[in-house]
Amino acid sequence: MKENMYDDEEFFSSYSHMLRSETGLEGAGEWHELERHIPDLEGKRVLDLGCGYGWHAAYAASLKAGYVLAVDLSERMLERARDINSAPCIEYRRIAMEDLELPPSSFDFVLSSLAFHYIEDFPSMAEKICTWLKDGGIFLFSAEHPVFTAAGSQDWYYDSEGRIMHFPVDSYFYEGKRDALFLGHNVVKYHRTLTTYIRALLSAGFTIKDIVEPQPPLSMMDIPGMKDEMRRPMMIIIEAVKNG
Amino acid sequence: MKENMYDDEEFFSSYSHMLRSETGLEGAGEWHELERHIPDLEGKRVLDLGCGYGWHAAYAASLKAGYVLAVDLSERMLERARDINSAPCIEYRRIAMEDLELPPSSFDFVLSSLAFHYIEDFPSMAEKICTWLKDGGIFLFSAEHPVFTAAGSQDWYYDSEGRIMHFPVDSYFYEGKRDALFLGHNVVKYHRTLTTYIRALLSAGFTIKDIVEPQPPLSMMDIPGMKDEMRRPMMIIIEAVKNG
Repeated sequence: MKENMYDDEEFFSSYSHMLRSETGLEGAGEWHELERHIPDLEGKRVLDLGCGYGWHAAYAASLKAGYVLAVDLSERMLERARDINSAPCIEYRRIAMEDLELPPSSFDFVLSSLAFHYIEDFPSMAEKICTWLKDGGIFLFSAEHPVFTAAGSQDWYYDSEGRIMHFPVDSYFYEGKRDALFLGHNVVKYHRTLTTYIRALLSAGFTIKDIVEPQPPLSMMDIPGMKDEMRRPMMIIIEAVKNG
Repeated sequence: MKENMYDDEEFFSSYSHMLRSETGLEGAGEWHELERHIPDLEGKRVLDLGCGYGWHAAYAASLKAGYVLAVDLSERMLERARDINSAPCIEYRRIAMEDLELPPSSFDFVLSSLAFHYIEDFPSMAEKICTWLKDGGIFLFSAEHPVFTAAGSQDWYYDSEGRIMHFPVDSYFYEGKRDALFLGHNVVKYHRTLTTYIRALLSAGFTIKDIVEPQPPLSMMDIPGMKDEMRRPMMIIIEAVKNG
């Protein structure tokens, strides 16, 4: 069974108080970078993997997408998504993305926001996504940065007075399971190198279009802790296009 | 004046005792990855930026390159290169790569091994390289990994008993000059993010073909300290192709 932390009542409650949960895309520090990479979606078929509250699905709907399939493993997430981000073109479906089966060449655009660090096997996922996309279709995703996932704890290293010294990197080339602390809870995440992300995409049949490590926008720099986000990369955004 | 540490007698002496200096390409932990990306060079025009001892230039000559222009800022490096890695097709030239002027579309392949972290302005360099390459020409380089250059010291973080705890990352999004310790000497290097490398290549007119963070080969794992190279990425290799 895939881990389904987001259906844990307490964890979900913590998540629901994050800025990105309360205010949607505008509350997500990386949104301005992700948005720049979203293509024209009018009449297009969109797949959203790990849709959470449905903010991205709703955004696709606002761009007049023809159909949006938005999947998530968490019933609580989907309940909230149906509540606040419904649209006639959006189908919310509860399933682990690894278990999804879809016809080949049936989507124009596949999006995933901060979900792949929860899955164990990215190369297989990339292969499936490439199959589901039409030739020339775009695959855009954000994930936690390999720098952020390598050591495991995902926490800064502090001096004896509790001040941040630096961010620790360790075990970089040892990929796999990590026990991370997220919102005060132990959460299983998976570390992989940048090389593995790139190799998986190239082998699956993609061309790399862009790679961005988002920095917080100036407008959010006064939020407590945000300046520290300049000290290490936390996320990576990759845009790839299906060859053919 | 560009920094020319390699003409400092003491520093050069330290460098000359590194495994990669004494045994050439086979002594370089990343060579097996770089080699995989070198195209057919028979009859081709090759540019080697920051050629050092000339190991790569000699390798290109062994692949029957038609002409190899190999440049370096250090007279000591070039002296040694002419001594041990000469070939009729190789021209060694002393110049800072930033000052090089070459005709457009005059090279098939541009290679640079571990030199770009010494230059301040990579985007300008990438633009020039793109101009010098013929359409479809390949640009292959290794550089110190942004994880390795970010904090500046390039050293591990140790516990009170001198054991490695982890590798520190800091100031990641603050690009520019760093005072690094290399072979016991203070050396100026330049940190830039992965994003900057990628953006510079894309803007210059390249397509990204591959990105690899080399791991030490199993055959070198018994060399003291080599296992620690699994704990953080030290180098990055990028292959790009000129559009058109």
